[in-house]
Amino acid sequence: MSEKKINIGILGFGTVGTSVYRILKDRKKDLKERFGLEIVIKKILEKDKSRASFLGDEKDLMIDDFDKVVNDEDIDIIVELIGGINPANSFIMKALENNKNIVTANKELMATYGEEILKKASERGLGVHFEASVGGGVPIIKPLKESLGGNKISKVLGIVNGTTNYILTKMADENESFKEALKDAQERGYAEANPEADVEGKDAAAKIAILASLAFNSRVNLDDVFCEGISKITTKDINYAQELGFVIKLLAIAKDENREIEVRVHPAFIPESHPLASVKGIYNAIFIEGDAVGEVMFFGKGAGGMAAGSSVVGDIIDLALKIQSNKTGVIKSTYFKGKRIKNIEEIITKYYILIEAYDKPGVLAKISKAFGDNKVSLSSVIQWESIGKEADIVFMTHLTRDKDVQKSLLKIKSLDVVRKVRNVIRVEAL
Amino acid sequence: MSEKKINIGILGFGTVGTSVYRILKDRKKDLKERFGLEIVIKKILEKDKSRASFLGDEKDLMIDDFDKVVNDEDIDIIVELIGGINPANSFIMKALENNKNIVTANKELMATYGEEILKKASERGLGVHFEASVGGGVPIIKPLKESLGGNKISKVLGIVNGTTNYILTKMADENESFKEALKDAQERGYAEANPEADVEGKDAAAKIAILASLAFNSRVNLDDVFCEGISKITTKDINYAQELGFVIKLLAIAKDENREIEVRVHPAFIPESHPLASVKGIYNAIFIEGDAVGEVMFFGKGAGGMAAGSSVVGDIIDLALKIQSNKTGVIKSTYFKGKRIKNIEEIITKYYILIEAYDKPGVLAKISKAFGDNKVSLSSVIQWESIGKEADIVFMTHLTRDKDVQKSLLKIKSLDVVRKVRNVIRVEAL
Repeated sequence: MSEKKINIGILGFGTVGTSVYRILKDRKKDLKERFGLEIVIKKILEKDKSRASFLGDEKDLMIDDFDKVVNDEDIDIIVELIGGINPANSFIMKALENNKNIVTANKELMATYGEEILKKASERGLGVHFEASVGGGVPIIKPLKESLGGNKISKVLGIVNGTTNYILTKMADENESFKEALKDAQERGYAEANPEADVEGKDAAAKIAILASLAFNSRVNLDDVFCEGISKITTKDINYAQELGFVIKLLAIAKDENREIEVRVHPAFIPESHPLASVKGIYNAIFIEGDAVGEVMFFGKGAGGMAAGSSVVGDIIDLALKIQSNKTGVIKSTYFKGKRIKNIEEIITKYYILIEAYDKPGVLAKISKAFGDNKVSLSSVIQWESIGKEADIVFMTHLTRDKDVQKSLLKIKSLDVVRKVRNVIRVEAL
Repeated sequence: MSEKKINIGILGFGTVGTSVYRILKDRKKDLKERFGLEIVIKKILEKDKSRASFLGDEKDLMIDDFDKVVNDEDIDIIVELIGGINPANSFIMKALENNKNIVTANKELMATYGEEILKKASERGLGVHFEASVGGGVPIIKPLKESLGGNKISKVLGIVNGTTNYILTKMADENESFKEALKDAQERGYAEANPEADVEGKDAAAKIAILASLAFNSRVNLDDVFCEGISKITTKDINYAQELGFVIKLLAIAKDENREIEVRVHPAFIPESHPLASVKGIYNAIFIEGDAVGEVMFFGKGAGGMAAGSSVVGDIIDLALKIQSNKTGVIKSTYFKGKRIKNIEEIITKYYILIEAYDKPGVLAKISKAFGDNKVSLSSVIQWESIGKEADIVFMTHLTRDKDVQKSLLKIKSLDVVRKVRNVIRVEAL
């Protein structure tokens, strides 16, 4: 085995970049002993000069000109940690053209231009690894693609956003409102000042698009993912869920129904006995069903520089070993099945529906009729204590089409006995 | 990429062997499309002729002469699914000498002769994969070795035996005795007629020996593992655990304390909030702590032919891709650190100790003194309702050396106020 040095260039020296730098330093001896690898950071692209302080006497590694990285003939692997679509996309494309292998943590990019990137890499016999784009430090992409390679994967259910899981955990365990829990998350650095991408589910949507593409070998883009966030969840919903034996999680769901794919992100009731129900705080977990393996789950810290750094370094090791033996680009572009992605109206699932009604005779009959008229069959109806003249009524449905639920709700909103449809939450993982 | 056929020979056609056969048939088209692989089963070694019925018109694949498999020059990979040390060990050694790559599910063999096997394979540039030897279908060995390759692993905690976890779950959830739960497990086929290897922890010991070797890059053999089973656990222990906020699990534990390694299998109290506490029934889970990734857990079905078959096929794909590109044997034998393995007497942990005492004045003082005299410091003492003249007293200790606990118990057993030391269970994962 030839033991040449593997040179890498890092694009972006923020939390993840500095963690990668630190891990490669800390594990230098170990990487040599275990894998026979000598990995050298040759250049770091970063405009914020203040970050050079992290580099001690290696300050000179930091430059601000991408061309110098991509044109360095010694560099074998480019590690993209900038995030976002631009300029990350053009940087990666250029790097592939210059025969660089790629490691990236960029979920948005991989969920949007993953196919183009993998195709170009495949044509040129190069490797693109993106373990850190989903689940932070949790190994998921490689186990899914490789270890479970003998399975037909039928379902992926994930808690893939730590911010929203922290908020929902706080709301459930400490009876805080959404706003209070969000504020707490922001104070602890678990949520951004502008929390939209996390709270409205877009971050989770990018991750499930990546997982669905890999699991089902069919392209699923970020835009294909139906996406609903958690900002409408109230402590009432959480309490009713608990009464009924459920917890509420922001769930990323992908199902392969042979000819069609379902892929969506939304809050969901899941039974408290389900393994995902016990995933609390900033933790992530991804639950997979395969025809041979049955159910498997991968759990761990979904965020944080060191956790993501762990995945990035795992990818670097993988590529470095392949480069040492001239053996990159083993696995083909996997998006060879162009399956149709269902619209949300076609989705069939169960529902929790919380209605605030006036406490009058006949109210249940009227609402139930509106459901029945629209083919929505109810599995249970619970009327909670009424406050004054109003009562909370919780309807749990059998399996029903989303379209039928929406139609029945239109009718129900117009009923004189109904004050408000407070929330509609899908019930999953039953 | 050259796309030659990869020929395999299977040794042993029991539950796992037939599952591997079935998965390779079912996924034939998929393996071609996704990986460009054509995997052909060329020979199956099996003495029990009745099993040929599974093969339909491919009955002729089955033979009963190992030499014909190992001398078949077309065979690239030998899949060993016989189990046990002999003849599996000599078959694998012979196969390596004949330049065959190996996939095995044999935990006992890998925990005993793993180093010799990997060394021989490494010398000859061959691959040996053994994902199915731990955790059944749960991908754990490959993620640990590869995805987490950038981490210094400090701890592995596993529920790695489905039989005992089923029994303990039954005892906890349905208040059954050990005997009743064992009988139930046997009736469902989750426990053997002779359940010793599972119940006394030997199966788990082999698995943690394998995981510890990989995690810490230092040889740990089956014989190095301290091992205590679950047959002494009573419903009393389980109920007291619940009262105190714990569950009892058969835990496989490995810790790297830099110069020394700790590795042991025994029942343990774990806090009910720990992710391992919610792993029920026949499921397995392995919890890993690494310096970069933090805590990760892998969960799934630890037994069953199809689950193990999933791991075996994952290994076959891995090797087949490497063979296609003349690229086997990438990772060196990893046991390069010869760390000392601690004796059980040196282990420091917390303890639950249940003592049946006579309900007399001064009983607590006498027992507490015996603990104190032997440097065992108590964190809490709970006296449960007394029945007649006896009382159950539960002592929970602070961190203490095993040796000191044993010494104090010798003294306590001799006290006139003590009827019996009912059980001593370590408290972990705090």
